[in-house]
Amino acid sequence: MQDNGRILDAISKPADLHLLSNDELAILCGEIRQEIIATTAQTGGHLGSSLGAVEIIVALHSLLNCPEDKIVFDVGHQAYAHKLLTGRLNRFSSLRQTDGITAFTNPAESEYDVHHSGHASDSLSVALGLAKARDLSGGTNKIVTVIGDAALSGGMAFEALNHIGQEQTPMVIVLNDNEMSISRPVGALVHHLGYMRISDQYRDARDALQEALEQRGPFMRFMLEMGRRSKDSFKQFLFPQATIFESLDIVSTSPIDGHDIAKLREVLSVVLEADVPVLVHAITKKGKGYAPAEENPEAFHGPAGFNVETGELKKSAGGPPSFTQVFGDALVAEAEANDAICAVTAAMEGGTGLHDFAEKFPDRFFDTGITEEHALGFASGLAIGGKKPVVAIYSTFMQRALDQIVIDNAMEDLDVVLAIDRAGLVGGDGATHNGALDISYLRMVPNARILVPSDEAELVHALHTALAIPGLVALRYPRGTGEGVELPATPEVLEVGKSRTVREGNDVAILAFGRMVRFAREAAELLEEQGISARVVDMRWAKPLDVDAIEAATQTKLVVTVEEGCIPGGAGEGVLEELSKLGSAPLTLTLGLPDEFVEQGDYKEIFARIGIDAAGIASAIRTKLN
Amino acid sequence: MQDNGRILDAISKPADLHLLSNDELAILCGEIRQEIIATTAQTGGHLGSSLGAVEIIVALHSLLNCPEDKIVFDVGHQAYAHKLLTGRLNRFSSLRQTDGITAFTNPAESEYDVHHSGHASDSLSVALGLAKARDLSGGTNKIVTVIGDAALSGGMAFEALNHIGQEQTPMVIVLNDNEMSISRPVGALVHHLGYMRISDQYRDARDALQEALEQRGPFMRFMLEMGRRSKDSFKQFLFPQATIFESLDIVSTSPIDGHDIAKLREVLSVVLEADVPVLVHAITKKGKGYAPAEENPEAFHGPAGFNVETGELKKSAGGPPSFTQVFGDALVAEAEANDAICAVTAAMEGGTGLHDFAEKFPDRFFDTGITEEHALGFASGLAIGGKKPVVAIYSTFMQRALDQIVIDNAMEDLDVVLAIDRAGLVGGDGATHNGALDISYLRMVPNARILVPSDEAELVHALHTALAIPGLVALRYPRGTGEGVELPATPEVLEVGKSRTVREGNDVAILAFGRMVRFAREAAELLEEQGISARVVDMRWAKPLDVDAIEAATQTKLVVTVEEGCIPGGAGEGVLEELSKLGSAPLTLTLGLPDEFVEQGDYKEIFARIGIDAAGIASAIRTKLN
Repeated sequence: MQDNGRILDAISKPADLHLLSNDELAILCGEIRQEIIATTAQTGGHLGSSLGAVEIIVALHSLLNCPEDKIVFDVGHQAYAHKLLTGRLNRFSSLRQTDGITAFTNPAESEYDVHHSGHASDSLSVALGLAKARDLSGGTNKIVTVIGDAALSGGMAFEALNHIGQEQTPMVIVLNDNEMSISRPVGALVHHLGYMRISDQYRDARDALQEALEQRGPFMRFMLEMGRRSKDSFKQFLFPQATIFESLDIVSTSPIDGHDIAKLREVLSVVLEADVPVLVHAITKKGKGYAPAEENPEAFHGPAGFNVETGELKKSAGGPPSFTQVFGDALVAEAEANDAICAVTAAMEGGTGLHDFAEKFPDRFFDTGITEEHALGFASGLAIGGKKPVVAIYSTFMQRALDQIVIDNAMEDLDVVLAIDRAGLVGGDGATHNGALDISYLRMVPNARILVPSDEAELVHALHTALAIPGLVALRYPRGTGEGVELPATPEVLEVGKSRTVREGNDVAILAFGRMVRFAREAAELLEEQGISARVVDMRWAKPLDVDAIEAATQTKLVVTVEEGCIPGGAGEGVLEELSKLGSAPLTLTLGLPDEFVEQGDYKEIFARIGIDAAGIASAIRTKLN
Repeated sequence: MQDNGRILDAISKPADLHLLSNDELAILCGEIRQEIIATTAQTGGHLGSSLGAVEIIVALHSLLNCPEDKIVFDVGHQAYAHKLLTGRLNRFSSLRQTDGITAFTNPAESEYDVHHSGHASDSLSVALGLAKARDLSGGTNKIVTVIGDAALSGGMAFEALNHIGQEQTPMVIVLNDNEMSISRPVGALVHHLGYMRISDQYRDARDALQEALEQRGPFMRFMLEMGRRSKDSFKQFLFPQATIFESLDIVSTSPIDGHDIAKLREVLSVVLEADVPVLVHAITKKGKGYAPAEENPEAFHGPAGFNVETGELKKSAGGPPSFTQVFGDALVAEAEANDAICAVTAAMEGGTGLHDFAEKFPDRFFDTGITEEHALGFASGLAIGGKKPVVAIYSTFMQRALDQIVIDNAMEDLDVVLAIDRAGLVGGDGATHNGALDISYLRMVPNARILVPSDEAELVHALHTALAIPGLVALRYPRGTGEGVELPATPEVLEVGKSRTVREGNDVAILAFGRMVRFAREAAELLEEQGISARVVDMRWAKPLDVDAIEAATQTKLVVTVEEGCIPGGAGEGVLEELSKLGSAPLTLTLGLPDEFVEQGDYKEIFARIGIDAAGIASAIRTKLN
């Protein structure tokens, strides 16, 4: 299959890399880059991170014996080269498409993928678990993690480093430190990493380690022994606790060029033999090897597609603004009128639509890094101090902060607004990123109020309401474009726990939540053609529920709920519970996302498949009525 | 009110301390200790931590103007001295009792309590939020946190430190570093703290800072300016990134004696004037001032009561073993038969009944520190590596790891067992520690299976089942003694999703979960006296539910569910959803914990108050039938 002469086409398994020279591996890296660029230009995807990690991945596979050896990728959006080297080259053009190659590492896709990555900062924990399982079984396989500098800001990574330093079992941590973070520092740790890069003193100390490692002689063994025993004496002399990693008893190398395949292999080949945990500090460039991405790393972090020749990014299809954009604009307008309003996000300034807010109100804008737990605790402090924090985080990541929502926010019923973006299905990012659970994990929280705007105009009212009423209020809205409705000139304060009926009808009452209101209306039209008169209610609130609307619904033959969230614990079950309390026992139908992990794909196609598009809703209602 | 001549009795507000000399404050500390010892001897409580923090708290209140200034306590079990100094002396004997003084800081109880503490590691986030709110409002009040070394292992604390280092706004972090941690080190950080204590080099560098601070002259201002600007040059010279805190741009003092009131005041009075964040490293002794507690700090961490004179701990009332004990014993038995079984806990070895396991299988036992997120990620790695990890964590703390349960465990459906202790009401620890939410936050997770053993014999079967079947399985069981039933000689594998009927009856079907089975049986007996025949089903599983038992229940006049968990998202709503799917619409009644934060008190009394004891259940059923 080497018809075009590419080395890449001759790779059937990663061990094939063992036979290649450094020069050949460098050529292979170029081929991998071309493949990544060509594919993501079509499909969209995490271009920048994956281009930055090519040499690291090639170097690792040239030395490891996977799948016996394990590479645990953090987030996994840097792992495209790994996918191309582990039997997925031929299917790579299906990246992020329905039934195609998934966005992150995925054990269901390949035996070379260790875990479902996608949520940052978990790789070190998983890797340490693998390492201890190996130790208990008397194994000798290698365990490696590849983690970016941003992911280190997540507390889970620190928890793991602390435990790794204690356990002192062999594993290699490759810190993929790209320069991006320096242009936009989040947290003092990034400053420290910068210090590690520039300090001569530090560099000298690390070079001494490096030399020792490279000699592979008795001196190295002595050094590593020192490390293993965590003795202060000699180790302190060479490394006066110079880095945060050494503070945690993890030996780390001096920063090396993460695009120098020869250097990477040299260092990795040594540290992979160490009998202590070692951190390899590799400096990389996001978008490496594709000029437009190197020049504009943020835009090319996750482009929707682009022209390879010109670097021109695929324009959005036009049409209505996204929910995210509407939220961001509305928040700026609110903040202009009320200087108590602050915005907090966890490394998602752009993704949550807060660019303008950050520019206009830099003092009131806080990007805390990949730290959902801290973000909610911090918001709690802001609220106690009299501010009105709006915490904008994706639904799937907000679950990281459940405990803080319960204890720090809800227990005191503080004036904290949770702006939950990407609620519902998210498309190409797939199962790890779907926001299926937020209604359930918030409904159970005492004092929490949950707004579920059905379109972008409702979103503007919902945000205004959340800021106007006291206490903990969440609003959840989907990824993607709005419905194209006109935005209100003046936002209104919605009455708490009150719905609005958007279509009258007497045979069936469809109580719809969020984006499903549209599908419910379309279903009602289909039903009308068949002589079934369906009421459609935009419930507006998932908690508290509108008991009057629920009671009124019992006058029809069937009470239907439909939501873009999982059934267990969802708003539909809440309606069932209200019906039970009313002592009413009508026929009911509860529609929503299934109790399973939903894979990537266009959300409308998935709605059709699982039966919550208009046709599906109408069909389920007809079946139930018969 | 100084009838017995105590200084403490003359303190009506913390500012009264401003007028006292160091000698008088030292006497006051002794009086506070006596009060804490005398009260906890009767009520039980967090004796050791609170005795260790007396001087820190007295020193702070002698310098601060609370409530304008804020002290944010981490966990808050060290805050009894604070409670005694802020108007709660007269009511202190009601500590941890129904309607009494609560176990942790509680804003509902006092304007001097900043937040609902109870879950570790959140204080730094809350404090930084308060500090930024102050800055935005142009305020000048002081913000102080008091945090123990153990709480620093929690990732949220690291996330906050990273942000604090970036923001560089004035606040004081008092690290209450008690020697306990050294006798039982968890994590490399503790080793590092030990290093900070013993290193001469470090001490010298810190002393230079100290001196400078104490001079309060231009040199200090220059130093602090350096710190504020985070310049490497001069700061590096004095502090070669010697501590993990300095790595994060937080100036820290050398370790000082946390029981030396004069020294504490001297240092605090300086650092409270700094215009950068400063960490004060105070070395304390757990149980300080009460010999039995100093000698046996673990037993006196949270005694149930004791004899002040002899130090003899209050014996448990006898009777059946606790669920925790039964779990611990059963796990040891399982682990003897299967060497793949590992136990993981998050700083709760004793609390979760794992002492014996840790002693018998030290290689397979992992206490990861206060790190629920990492614990679940780590367990995920162990499972991928072929082990059978059992993760034992309290219900209220397990919610910290929701994201890891979803992404790292459930998505791959790994062989991970969640042993959820303290599920339901917990008594004296109160609202922050109740385990009301776990059924809800697990029911929504695809692939999760939830066992709800109703007594200690069922717990043994449940654990055996969880270990025998593949995939993610949770078992949840309450705090306190079991029902006194005989333990099975040979545990059985329970059929997944199958209940057992414990009482036949035709008028009403009570589907009961966990400990509520007993109350349901008693309710059935009460109902029988009134001519109502009630079936009682021990559902055994909250997910998947026994659909056959639910369908059979529809043959009665009323389907009742009762669980020791919150209604929203709970098992009862799951039953309603199954009924909806069956197309069946019987009269239903859903009983459980209310959708509110339930305060401290005896669980049976609370059950009676909220109507889920036997009389309450029977009464609700009669009402519904009429």
